[in-house]
Amino acid sequence: MSDVLNVLTDKTPKKFDGPEAPCSVGYVSPRNVRLADEANPLPLECGKAIWPIDVEYEIYGGLNEKKDNAILVLHALSGDAHAAGWYHDAEELGRPWLAKRPGWWDSMIGPGKAFDTKKYCVICSNILGSCYGTTGPSSINPETGRPYGLRFPVVTVGDWVRLQERLISCLGIERLVSVVGGSLGGQQALEWALAYPDRVASAIMIASTAWLTDQGLAFNAVSRKAITADPGFKDGDYYNTIGPDQGLSVARMLAHITYLSEISMHRKFGRRFCNGDRPGFQLEADFEVEGYLRHQAESFVERFDANSYLYITKAADYYDASAWGGGDLDKACEKISSKILLVSFSSDWLYLPGHMKKLALTLGRNRKQVSYANIQSLYGHDAFLLEVDKLTLLVRNFLEGGGQIDSK
Amino acid sequence: MSDVLNVLTDKTPKKFDGPEAPCSVGYVSPRNVRLADEANPLPLECGKAIWPIDVEYEIYGGLNEKKDNAILVLHALSGDAHAAGWYHDAEELGRPWLAKRPGWWDSMIGPGKAFDTKKYCVICSNILGSCYGTTGPSSINPETGRPYGLRFPVVTVGDWVRLQERLISCLGIERLVSVVGGSLGGQQALEWALAYPDRVASAIMIASTAWLTDQGLAFNAVSRKAITADPGFKDGDYYNTIGPDQGLSVARMLAHITYLSEISMHRKFGRRFCNGDRPGFQLEADFEVEGYLRHQAESFVERFDANSYLYITKAADYYDASAWGGGDLDKACEKISSKILLVSFSSDWLYLPGHMKKLALTLGRNRKQVSYANIQSLYGHDAFLLEVDKLTLLVRNFLEGGGQIDSK
Repeated sequence: MSDVLNVLTDKTPKKFDGPEAPCSVGYVSPRNVRLADEANPLPLECGKAIWPIDVEYEIYGGLNEKKDNAILVLHALSGDAHAAGWYHDAEELGRPWLAKRPGWWDSMIGPGKAFDTKKYCVICSNILGSCYGTTGPSSINPETGRPYGLRFPVVTVGDWVRLQERLISCLGIERLVSVVGGSLGGQQALEWALAYPDRVASAIMIASTAWLTDQGLAFNAVSRKAITADPGFKDGDYYNTIGPDQGLSVARMLAHITYLSEISMHRKFGRRFCNGDRPGFQLEADFEVEGYLRHQAESFVERFDANSYLYITKAADYYDASAWGGGDLDKACEKISSKILLVSFSSDWLYLPGHMKKLALTLGRNRKQVSYANIQSLYGHDAFLLEVDKLTLLVRNFLEGGGQIDSK
Repeated sequence: MSDVLNVLTDKTPKKFDGPEAPCSVGYVSPRNVRLADEANPLPLECGKAIWPIDVEYEIYGGLNEKKDNAILVLHALSGDAHAAGWYHDAEELGRPWLAKRPGWWDSMIGPGKAFDTKKYCVICSNILGSCYGTTGPSSINPETGRPYGLRFPVVTVGDWVRLQERLISCLGIERLVSVVGGSLGGQQALEWALAYPDRVASAIMIASTAWLTDQGLAFNAVSRKAITADPGFKDGDYYNTIGPDQGLSVARMLAHITYLSEISMHRKFGRRFCNGDRPGFQLEADFEVEGYLRHQAESFVERFDANSYLYITKAADYYDASAWGGGDLDKACEKISSKILLVSFSSDWLYLPGHMKKLALTLGRNRKQVSYANIQSLYGHDAFLLEVDKLTLLVRNFLEGGGQIDSK
């Protein structure tokens, strides 16, 4: 267990594989299943229970006869169930922004890729509280016939994982080959290993930690303040109006900064001006980086629900793996029996490599099967979406090589 | 020139010296002087000119007969001319928040302190565009009889320094012993050394750099977006209304995070909840760090003008010392003849120690008299207000010892 792959990289991310490429899972469609109803509501960590819950998920590759080749992929804050492949009908699905790009982790999922769909059946399911097909604050509250808004209960990473367990059971899968996720998805992977040790042979946690730092809590607090302070927010009941678009823009601009490293921003923008090489001496956006952030925010506002942003960042804040040990991470780790792969990125300042290393040491101290790699990367937190070659090497070795990474 | 004082500290900041303490400058009053009028407007870098300009400043210690013992202190983003001592009449001055605390750098200015008022005459002047006595966007526009708002011209660090030069000349001072500032104040100190090499014997730049990083630009862009997106902003003409208080709150919460280090936030808050030791599973603020940021923001909104925030962050964005060399920092540095002291802090991630070190190396390469120290501190950017003992040692040695710091 030590830092491996200490090669500094700054390559441009790969172009997308088209749907016809042999390494693509091709065209896919989202599926939907009801996993909680009045007779079988989902009890939540906050003490409430909720029904109905419909869950959107996607499947790439086929489940074998024994149903023992499944890998569950868990998405991050703004993600969805569309992890790989292409939509024929993005417009009809109401997600036009997905017409010209594949799923968010297409580089890692497909025939011959890290999560090889010739071998594994890869499942990705959208989290509770999201706005992408699974029940969330924008869903209709059966009690009122109107969207939940802030009447939606506060949900947690633990709740998400318990709902995912229902999905896996519903698909007839007893034990997963692996659960894997980056960022907030990585915390779901860890939660799986803690909550269902017998159901997961392994867990892969990328650019993630056992809990968010106070700095991370602080950034989320600012984001939520920006949303709720927007007069368009109307206490969450904005669904027939413009809504808190401005507040959500501010939240996204801020979050986007935390996903990049200082050095990657410097390489991308280099204090260049939008127009020419001289300052415009204007209050409006004058540096390229400002224009970029505004553009990112505008497209995000088109595709994300502000209430979901509140609920999901809250779940991120509350997550604390040590709760399984009454606040003691060592004690919590005792519950784990799955093989664990932890991967951090040197320039990630949102989910700190040092914190992941501590988790790795804690698991090691408790004699768990753990492999840890800190990838030298300039991409910051976003590296979990970009450092495909190195991740592929680590994941393949972990899934197929029996576990321990031979590192020096 | 190398890192010195590598002692890790985490002490609680000192309590204030009361106005009667022998090391306090005691009770002080702000002064005001008109430094630009119709006959003598201030030409600005943006191409416009502005008049009248009234400047608020304070003086601690006496100017000697030769007027050669003056030190000019330059303040940062949210600072003012009240760098040391106490107000008798904070309420009457319209600044009740200053009733129970001394000036912002009182720990460094006073009899026997780093900037020893028994020896030096210390002057601090409020910047153009501020809301603390010097002409700014909240001042009355003589053309309309109403506050300037966004009709105020875009001002720069260069403009500030040219106005400060008028103040110094007006006080009959030919040459300053030193110009000194932290953060954006440090950039003013550097600008003095570049613009008026013959007028400053030395410059002290603390927690500052030759230009802001793209990440810094990005944070400022988010802050300005939060302010201007607030419907209370009304294109800057909000002076008889509530104004963009919510947007300014968001801006301040965000900025506050960048002033602290991750480790100092962890030590201060440690993911503790506001109420008890269990999560409240609520969307409202539940962690101590959230409550703290909101409180900081609320008090900031009481004392700062949103338009000034826009203008001053813009000046911070535009500052680029290399402009004196046509974009070449080496060439710019040739202009400097003052002795320079540079001090960075290891955990400062807003004005990077590495960037200050590069400036130090550039000055050294150009055979300038430069001393550089990187203080090991946990306080982040705020260290320039908190690491008093170490700063005192460095400053005293620099001012009295003839320059080069003997460091290993």
